[in-house]
Amino acid sequence: MTGFNYELQATDGAARRGVIHTPRGDIQTPAFMPVGTAGTVKALYTDQVKETGADIVLGNTYHLMLRPGAEEVAALGGLHAFMRWSGPILTDSGGFQVMSLSQLRKMTEEGVTFQSHIDGRSYALSPERSIEIQCLLGSDIQMVLDECTPFPATHDEADKSMQLSTRWAKRSKEAFLSQPHRKDGQALFGIVQGSTYEDLRRTSAAALIDIGFDGYAVGGLAVGEGQSEMLRVLDFTTPLLPQERPRYLMGVGTPDDLVEAVSRGIDMFDCVMPTRSGRHGQVFTRYGKINIKNARHAHDPRPLDETSSCPAARDYSRAYLHHLIKNGEILGMMLLSWNNIAYYQSLMADMRAAIAEGRFEAFRRAFKETQAAGDIDPV
Amino acid sequence: MTGFNYELQATDGAARRGVIHTPRGDIQTPAFMPVGTAGTVKALYTDQVKETGADIVLGNTYHLMLRPGAEEVAALGGLHAFMRWSGPILTDSGGFQVMSLSQLRKMTEEGVTFQSHIDGRSYALSPERSIEIQCLLGSDIQMVLDECTPFPATHDEADKSMQLSTRWAKRSKEAFLSQPHRKDGQALFGIVQGSTYEDLRRTSAAALIDIGFDGYAVGGLAVGEGQSEMLRVLDFTTPLLPQERPRYLMGVGTPDDLVEAVSRGIDMFDCVMPTRSGRHGQVFTRYGKINIKNARHAHDPRPLDETSSCPAARDYSRAYLHHLIKNGEILGMMLLSWNNIAYYQSLMADMRAAIAEGRFEAFRRAFKETQAAGDIDPV
Repeated sequence: MTGFNYELQATDGAARRGVIHTPRGDIQTPAFMPVGTAGTVKALYTDQVKETGADIVLGNTYHLMLRPGAEEVAALGGLHAFMRWSGPILTDSGGFQVMSLSQLRKMTEEGVTFQSHIDGRSYALSPERSIEIQCLLGSDIQMVLDECTPFPATHDEADKSMQLSTRWAKRSKEAFLSQPHRKDGQALFGIVQGSTYEDLRRTSAAALIDIGFDGYAVGGLAVGEGQSEMLRVLDFTTPLLPQERPRYLMGVGTPDDLVEAVSRGIDMFDCVMPTRSGRHGQVFTRYGKINIKNARHAHDPRPLDETSSCPAARDYSRAYLHHLIKNGEILGMMLLSWNNIAYYQSLMADMRAAIAEGRFEAFRRAFKETQAAGDIDPV
Repeated sequence: MTGFNYELQATDGAARRGVIHTPRGDIQTPAFMPVGTAGTVKALYTDQVKETGADIVLGNTYHLMLRPGAEEVAALGGLHAFMRWSGPILTDSGGFQVMSLSQLRKMTEEGVTFQSHIDGRSYALSPERSIEIQCLLGSDIQMVLDECTPFPATHDEADKSMQLSTRWAKRSKEAFLSQPHRKDGQALFGIVQGSTYEDLRRTSAAALIDIGFDGYAVGGLAVGEGQSEMLRVLDFTTPLLPQERPRYLMGVGTPDDLVEAVSRGIDMFDCVMPTRSGRHGQVFTRYGKINIKNARHAHDPRPLDETSSCPAARDYSRAYLHHLIKNGEILGMMLLSWNNIAYYQSLMADMRAAIAEGRFEAFRRAFKETQAAGDIDPV
């Protein structure tokens, strides 16, 4: 198997258990992709990321195009060699961060020009340049450049934005097919937009399927609409997507978000939450979320989770972790990021097993009960 | 062997190869002790510290008495359990950091009162309380509370300060012997003071030897006097110390400092330099010191040292390390701290082998030539 393809192994309700085969290795789905923004999953060695069970990581085109630059990464052997990650890498298109981080943006039909949030230098990003950058990085799963429709948006605004994204998706596909740097087995995903409007999501999905992609992402969610609205959109959007292709919910989310989205047929996720929260003392465990800065942990000799296979969860007392985070110690950020990524991966593994064994709904209920009854700090 | 003792295995000139036997394991000397200020060698897992070859780490009494507190550490099973380091730990007395970090100090014959640099709370430290704290932490090698004489000091100032330290050393020894928390095999070191004055160093050493300690430190150096003056003081101070006890040069230093001090008969060192420098992009290698932030490293695919057994030195490109540090990535601090501690330990191992084989002077010359001709960045 040298190409890219999705193998659906089991379904349980709408939930799907599968494998994405890529030239760089298999991705067990549903999968959570740790975010390696600027060529590093923050505060973790790649060996640790792998050992937690992650099959794939995400790289941010926006950050990497600014520093060190796509051509520089290519000259150094590509992103895999640069960051020492031999498994698959998915890169986003850069569009989302242009909107959220850069200054003096100017959007046209052609693309977007912007100033770097780091040094103010001017850059241009178009569907074609985004694909070129992603190919220079050596990305295994590339994303089309789209406009992430702001929330809330009127139907008319969402329509216009989605139509632009659709035209950009077509240009992205053409650029992808003609890229000299592209390698066999690299994949391109389309991104369904349309805000919270079912008719627009339907139009977007149909147009993307018509263009034809290796996978389909649901974009424009987790942008402030709230979980129930997000799930409502997923309820009518995922059935629009082809069974034989992986489905990726971008930028999501909490453990509960993941469980709910998997139950609606999503296969792939990415989110900075486990690492970003970890650096700030927010801890995810199978008992729920805790704030290790809370004074009640200062004297607690128990580990975060004595049954975990992750040393960060199993071998360090809560009192020590509390001490490290309260003192701003890097080791605290290392351990909690590690714990959180390991927890997210174990959650995905548990969901995969539950789907394969036809007991996902029971798993989902038990998960919600445990989290609700869990060792949760008052905020 | 359940006690604490020093075994001198070989000498080469004034340089000494030995082993300190402790109930928690042997310390091969000359030894460099990584500094674990607040219960963590910053940005390193203890497993990594051990794997670099470190037999012992240092903990700072001042930091630990403020947070989380000596009684708290004791309640959590002691510093070894707290930070997950099973080997020997040396703790300082806290005196040096009281002088350099705290506010509103008041020094009397009895001891020193001060306000925490963290929250302004008042604390008292006396020879007796320092020993009590070090025993609560479970320290294997404890240091007497002394006054680190400021530099420069007049002969009269240095004399008065040294005499106070001598009286405190005697009280420390008495407190150590009567400590209910003390365990068999725990050791207490005296600290020779006297600034740069040979007669005062002689008086100090004689008085400490008369009290009797398990090892002898040279204090009051690396406080601004410069390397040549430091080595001049060592030239007349180390011969004053008993052959059958380990000798510890506190707070030193650069790789060159270590080589020069070992050549003068020093057995033990501690310094924050490898970790602190690493966090700021200063890299120690067998080719010399480099500043990884320097632009010339941005395109360099070579590792820091392809012959090193440390993954941080061997497996990551300088370009990647440059990128990480320039972007403030925690992984950059992790990798360079790791590299630097590994380099320091390999330097100690090389010195131990050279002494054992009677070729230390040749080693020292080759070291200086390599460093001088090395891959050194212009500052």
